[in-house]
Amino acid sequence: MGIFDFLIFNKKTTKRVFLDYASSTPIRPEVREVLRVSADESFANPSALYEEARDAKALLVDAHKSIARSLNTTANQIVFTSGGTEANNIALLGVFEKARERGNPRPHVVSVVTEHPAVREVLNEIERRGGEVTLLSPREDGLIAVDQVVDVLKATTVLVSVMFVNNEIGVVQPIKEIAQAIKRKNKEDGFHVLFHTDACQAPLWYGLDVSTLGVDLLSLDGIKIGGPRSVGCLYVKGGTQISPVMWGGGQEGGLRSGTEHVGACLGLAKALELAKKEKNESSEKVQLLRDNLWSQIQKHFPEASVNGSLKHRAPNNLSVCFPGVDAEHLTVALDTYGVCVSYSSSCRTLKEDSTSYVVEALKPECKGSSIRFTLGIHTTQKDIDVAVQALRKAVIQVTR
Amino acid sequence: MGIFDFLIFNKKTTKRVFLDYASSTPIRPEVREVLRVSADESFANPSALYEEARDAKALLVDAHKSIARSLNTTANQIVFTSGGTEANNIALLGVFEKARERGNPRPHVVSVVTEHPAVREVLNEIERRGGEVTLLSPREDGLIAVDQVVDVLKATTVLVSVMFVNNEIGVVQPIKEIAQAIKRKNKEDGFHVLFHTDACQAPLWYGLDVSTLGVDLLSLDGIKIGGPRSVGCLYVKGGTQISPVMWGGGQEGGLRSGTEHVGACLGLAKALELAKKEKNESSEKVQLLRDNLWSQIQKHFPEASVNGSLKHRAPNNLSVCFPGVDAEHLTVALDTYGVCVSYSSSCRTLKEDSTSYVVEALKPECKGSSIRFTLGIHTTQKDIDVAVQALRKAVIQVTR
Repeated sequence: MGIFDFLIFNKKTTKRVFLDYASSTPIRPEVREVLRVSADESFANPSALYEEARDAKALLVDAHKSIARSLNTTANQIVFTSGGTEANNIALLGVFEKARERGNPRPHVVSVVTEHPAVREVLNEIERRGGEVTLLSPREDGLIAVDQVVDVLKATTVLVSVMFVNNEIGVVQPIKEIAQAIKRKNKEDGFHVLFHTDACQAPLWYGLDVSTLGVDLLSLDGIKIGGPRSVGCLYVKGGTQISPVMWGGGQEGGLRSGTEHVGACLGLAKALELAKKEKNESSEKVQLLRDNLWSQIQKHFPEASVNGSLKHRAPNNLSVCFPGVDAEHLTVALDTYGVCVSYSSSCRTLKEDSTSYVVEALKPECKGSSIRFTLGIHTTQKDIDVAVQALRKAVIQVTR
Repeated sequence: MGIFDFLIFNKKTTKRVFLDYASSTPIRPEVREVLRVSADESFANPSALYEEARDAKALLVDAHKSIARSLNTTANQIVFTSGGTEANNIALLGVFEKARERGNPRPHVVSVVTEHPAVREVLNEIERRGGEVTLLSPREDGLIAVDQVVDVLKATTVLVSVMFVNNEIGVVQPIKEIAQAIKRKNKEDGFHVLFHTDACQAPLWYGLDVSTLGVDLLSLDGIKIGGPRSVGCLYVKGGTQISPVMWGGGQEGGLRSGTEHVGACLGLAKALELAKKEKNESSEKVQLLRDNLWSQIQKHFPEASVNGSLKHRAPNNLSVCFPGVDAEHLTVALDTYGVCVSYSSSCRTLKEDSTSYVVEALKPECKGSSIRFTLGIHTTQKDIDVAVQALRKAVIQVTR
């Protein structure tokens, strides 16, 4: 059953194939039920004092605890946010500003060229504020080496931020190894470098035990894991020196002011719980389909190539370069054949130059010719077959 | 029908009376229906390119248009946020930072002592960042005079922020008159002072035509008007010089990055539309009940006094000082009698000193002895009568 069957898209007469799960996932029925029940049972502001407010507060604590269980940490180390973008902003700007406040005049932040705009644009802001940013370039397989990180650390470095699963090309960075290397360096040289990972694309396929990973900060987003929209969270290891990016009532331990949406927090917790429970089965299933998609593409488009390592890659992602093809035109053509894909991050399509800077970092010649296929738990073999048929027609159409 | 009948609180055996609508309002059935339908019809990321994403984008544009209609402005002047706190943060920090960027080394911001923490705490942050803040003190009736504002404006002033309806004491500031005076001063002295109002508590009772009001920035929040949680918006007059507080995909005209929750935006638009349509009838109804509550309180507690002007006050608000009574104890006692109230802003209860700085600004002796009753569209005469009975018992109990 494909996703549009699942959603019972009655108004559509033709079947559609959705292969853009990295952009958005449909909210899961179990999550929707959590939202419904919590909306029925509680509307009070969890910061008030009466019984209904205390009930709401207790549910909010439950949501913290549940997320903490999924990440193998404690409830007070989870900060709810309005999504992955805000979680990344708090992680990066929060650590940067706190370091300045504590007397580091020009805090140094290390990251990677291929990060999501919600990290890249924050790094630009850090530079505008007088910080120093080092952007590492990945190898042609999309990965960075641990030594690349270690080599640029210095006494003024306050943070390293490396994405777990890349949103465009799906490559999986060696988070655990980087974390270990940073800790070693901190110990040897007396540095105080924190490590953040944007893990928004990871939970459906990988375990996120923060103590095993060894990260200090980790961002998650509901929309990427079948959860509610406009809710995410940031894991903040106890003792982390960090400032907020918004000020007000001091909710979420002072790190994120604004009345919490208790239902959405519970919904995110449920989505993460389901992701953790099903990740092995889901991974196996989508990887088979993804590999089949790649086999069929190779057969019909021998000149096509995968962007980034096929081995170190999320099982649901296939980013393919079709040499000589305009990716935007191909995306639009595929849409007319009923297939939904993206040609760079959705968040990039708002920019003037919407070609992929992620692909560019690996294979400059492919930056305007690459399509991202991302599968989800509802993807079927039929979806893959329809997509390949559509591709065959669409590629001819746009190269004519 | 009181609110807890409305919510069918089956699990409660006793009837409860909710008089804390300034803290939270139950989501309206019409809004819930909008959320349900939009969740069924669309899950796509509005920034993607395919049909479903364009549909989501069109719905998002509809939400902008609807809010714009309610405020008598155009769709591109509405920025969706994660709530009132974020809207206030963008308004204040955004104008402050943009002014610094444009060469004003120490931008001056003017506001009032009695503002919500989501303004007060942002002003503290502006001071920490090297800005200059002037906090005006209201008169004993809670109001500020137009001249108080005008007198402190100077060449470096970039922003005046004055709350429309105070969240604790309900007083209504002369927004239109302040706006006119600022414009006159700008013209006469060549100043460039912008005017922001936190109108989160206003839409259920007052019209918010931004051109009549003459404001440059106006904040709204879903939770205060029967809308969805975790969604708000900021009206930003075209041409306003303002920076974001978060960075990323550049959504909402670059002023608020992060994937939009289309359903929540539509829900907020619906709640605002209903508020506008019903405000006259709602105001008349709650004012009668509020006045009745005040009459009964005066009868039973002749020493009680209202905090702030009774005349220039939202029709649903009654902030009462009970001399010699500990407001926190009274709040807890009222809860045991089934009545929900607050003794200062809910957002303040997280602070160590949770007495009311708002009441303190008017009547220092009442800061720890004042209770906020806020009525809503579901409040009934029965609720008022039950509340008064509970008060009679609770006050005796806490003064024993």
